[in-house]
Amino acid sequence: MTRSIELADLEDASCLIVGGGGFLGTHLCQALTKAKAKVCVFSRTITPIPDWQNVNAVQGTLENTELLRTAIKDSEFVFHLLGGVSPASVDSSLKLEIDHSVSASIRLFEMCCEYNVRRVIFVSSGGTVYGIPKSVPISEEAPTFPISPYGVNKLSIEKYLHYFWKSAGLDYAVMRVANPFGSFQVPGRGQGVIATMLKNAIDGKALEIWGDGKAIRDYIYAPDAARALALAAVYQGAERIFNVGSGLGRSVVDIATDILRLVDRDGFPVVYKDARPTDVPANVLDISRIHREFNWTPKTPWDQALRETANWVRGC
Amino acid sequence: MTRSIELADLEDASCLIVGGGGFLGTHLCQALTKAKAKVCVFSRTITPIPDWQNVNAVQGTLENTELLRTAIKDSEFVFHLLGGVSPASVDSSLKLEIDHSVSASIRLFEMCCEYNVRRVIFVSSGGTVYGIPKSVPISEEAPTFPISPYGVNKLSIEKYLHYFWKSAGLDYAVMRVANPFGSFQVPGRGQGVIATMLKNAIDGKALEIWGDGKAIRDYIYAPDAARALALAAVYQGAERIFNVGSGLGRSVVDIATDILRLVDRDGFPVVYKDARPTDVPANVLDISRIHREFNWTPKTPWDQALRETANWVRGC
Repeated sequence: MTRSIELADLEDASCLIVGGGGFLGTHLCQALTKAKAKVCVFSRTITPIPDWQNVNAVQGTLENTELLRTAIKDSEFVFHLLGGVSPASVDSSLKLEIDHSVSASIRLFEMCCEYNVRRVIFVSSGGTVYGIPKSVPISEEAPTFPISPYGVNKLSIEKYLHYFWKSAGLDYAVMRVANPFGSFQVPGRGQGVIATMLKNAIDGKALEIWGDGKAIRDYIYAPDAARALALAAVYQGAERIFNVGSGLGRSVVDIATDILRLVDRDGFPVVYKDARPTDVPANVLDISRIHREFNWTPKTPWDQALRETANWVRGC
Repeated sequence: MTRSIELADLEDASCLIVGGGGFLGTHLCQALTKAKAKVCVFSRTITPIPDWQNVNAVQGTLENTELLRTAIKDSEFVFHLLGGVSPASVDSSLKLEIDHSVSASIRLFEMCCEYNVRRVIFVSSGGTVYGIPKSVPISEEAPTFPISPYGVNKLSIEKYLHYFWKSAGLDYAVMRVANPFGSFQVPGRGQGVIATMLKNAIDGKALEIWGDGKAIRDYIYAPDAARALALAAVYQGAERIFNVGSGLGRSVVDIATDILRLVDRDGFPVVYKDARPTDVPANVLDISRIHREFNWTPKTPWDQALRETANWVRGC
């Protein structure tokens, strides 16, 4: 760590969150607003929340070139959270996925070069870019052999960022975020196992578990992840790729147990469904680099994070 | 090495070379024909050569889906040599490049799955996928941070192959070929520094050197590289990624010296031009893996390879 970095370093910085209307984007928006940054959210769907009163929200897609150009023009930092499609999707239309993720990102990076953006912070996927790891926890230096198109495309975008840095001087940070969870993650959309299980438990429905429920994942509370993303803008060291996770592995069965205890429904029915082909058996991120470089650790205890998420799910 | 492999193992095997009309494809065609394989060449441009009398040549692009389908249908092994555009191209139209390289390859792989192709042998780029190496020679385990779109796309295709293997069982070999040279490489097309310098030297023109001429590259004689590609079809071991190079580094100045000696033009003018932004300072491949697994080494001595290439350039 060259020097201690903190969110206060972002005061008055112009931050653009592309894809900021989503779940993690909303948390990032809150973190940046709290740090007194000037925030613009560019997203296909905008869901106004109380904290957004001082946020400039622009509704658009990366295809709206002129709208995007206007948003980028005065931005110092661009957070790229556009995910393409869901990690669970398979090869129904791989070309379309590439168009919407890789090619769209390249257009964004070209504009960032044009307007001398200080740094692009790209939210990559710690859960998919490594593929099936030889061992856990997985360091940023581990081999990357994704087993889903989603993961391949995230990795391609990372590589294109490196190319734009080398060829045009566009500075960047790649944030390989584990499985984020927390408020604003709408249950039942095929993503966010915690939100979906919480919702079912609260509603008195059976919990669905894909596969045998023993697959190990690294779950990171969204407000903690958002803080890491924000810090990446003001980081001054030499690293460019960071795992953002809890560093801990939990099975789906573990989580189901914790959730049923939380909602006081012991012995509740659990339904097992077929595993998805794009699921890896184990994924836990080594977070020693970001701890060392950012002095960042996930602050929120698991039980508290789960309880806060449950409270949000109850109201949604 | 599980057992000794040799070209004779390819006798009667149905081999499709996609992009086989090019320079390296022509050498591969010769190697496969010599091994008595049944060869089909699918290429945008077909240049018939004497050895092709028993070769089935199909003129088409990956966009000609039905033509490609017919070619793939009865193939056991598919050699994928389609390069997209030249390594020297930069970001004039990155999306188009992705369409023609990554997306087109995915369509090819989908068809290979459909027709149960036994193995895809993909010619990747040992000169670009690694980017700027921390040290040379570069092993297959080294980090991959390409500094050209060409390299990023080659890497994406490698990763998609891994995905198709994991999701659909499509077997594959990635051959990271260094800078190939030899007959059939037409001089003066912005690729193939050896062919171009030989042509200029033979024609009595000044040799052009990009940059300071000290950039180190690994040059592999095309017939040797082609033999490695052919062996990859019948390899039975567990590795999937192979460097294919000489394992030796030569500077452009070294080569110019050797060429001028060969054509007996000592003290000949050399013109220095600006380096290309996509050039890496040094690239030498570690070829111990392919030596161990295939018992392959580049057999042709440098002087002989250069002389044979010069003879071809003289006649073209």
